[in-house]
Amino acid sequence: MKQCIVTLDMEGVLTPEIWIAVAEKTGIPELRRTTRDEPDYDKLMRGRLAILAQHGLGLSHIQKVIGELRPLQGSKEFLDELRSMVPVVILSDTFEQFASPLLRQLGWPLLLCHRLVVENDRIINYALRVREQKQKAVAAFRQMNYYVIAAGDSYNDTKMLLEANSGILFRAPDNVKHEFPQFPTVETYPELLALIKKAIQEAQ
Amino acid sequence: MKQCIVTLDMEGVLTPEIWIAVAEKTGIPELRRTTRDEPDYDKLMRGRLAILAQHGLGLSHIQKVIGELRPLQGSKEFLDELRSMVPVVILSDTFEQFASPLLRQLGWPLLLCHRLVVENDRIINYALRVREQKQKAVAAFRQMNYYVIAAGDSYNDTKMLLEANSGILFRAPDNVKHEFPQFPTVETYPELLALIKKAIQEAQ
Repeated sequence: MKQCIVTLDMEGVLTPEIWIAVAEKTGIPELRRTTRDEPDYDKLMRGRLAILAQHGLGLSHIQKVIGELRPLQGSKEFLDELRSMVPVVILSDTFEQFASPLLRQLGWPLLLCHRLVVENDRIINYALRVREQKQKAVAAFRQMNYYVIAAGDSYNDTKMLLEANSGILFRAPDNVKHEFPQFPTVETYPELLALIKKAIQEAQ
Repeated sequence: MKQCIVTLDMEGVLTPEIWIAVAEKTGIPELRRTTRDEPDYDKLMRGRLAILAQHGLGLSHIQKVIGELRPLQGSKEFLDELRSMVPVVILSDTFEQFASPLLRQLGWPLLLCHRLVVENDRIINYALRVREQKQKAVAAFRQMNYYVIAAGDSYNDTKMLLEANSGILFRAPDNVKHEFPQFPTVETYPELLALIKKAIQEAQ
């Protein structure tokens, strides 16, 4: 049996979508826009940061808002059980400063993501650590001779799933399920845990 | 500021040396032998597994012995504080089946290590996932554009420290300190935390 590692997307798999939650809690609907509305990620992010600046919302305010969020129901128990049987890494395109209030509640699992550039509490920019970081992390773990089992919920996880030895869609929208019929799809944590256990058994 | 990740050796830094503890708890002094006594690691490991077989000690017995061990005093608090400020990965040449009772007590941090080959509770072999895995993991994280801060206590950590952007010796024996004077050396968790914070500030 080969050694396995599990990589999980964060938002939508373990936690709520952060920008959507921030939009709701701040009452700024423009912050709900996602890459579905604006495919150019850089344009989307610059727009988001401009909106925060216009409303005078600094990092500490946003962190307070995020601190009121809870991980998805059952996600902590799922993650604890998963970590007791296999190494787990969370791969997300969020930012360290946004994720930490949620990671604390999840018991500090390892998260690899990006970082905001902050000056005196003002979010002045964002810095992508590396492009296609989810896919690259999976490739690196394979290079380290791990059998990688990856799970995610959205289009931007599919490169990670394709790079992995075993890919699983969790609560994915229909268009993603339809476009990537090669990946098994599940809707609940017990189902996801069962599929991961099966993949571990089959790891060669 | 560049994004940082911290890699830590496990035995001697966060937990006791597992084989020495097993030697003491089972009363089999030959199990105390280390790579200092037998530089050929494969020969050493085959000797250890033969001794376990001779004494009829299966994996479950060894795991029970390891389950009675406690992480080093203060290590859990150190690790919790560290994980609240930076991603942390433990790199060890131990085996997953040995480490899990200790990882549980440490709150399931991510550990990358090796694996024992077990059949019906008999440890029949060991499988190194990859040679020089600590060094290779650090190289992979650097490739992912992380600034890597590594800490370890022994000779077999020095390649990892050399590969890292910033290397720190923790409770290292004098010969290692002497041979690698380029690495700062510390003896306590507060000192280690302070050095890591300094490295994070300086990360470029």
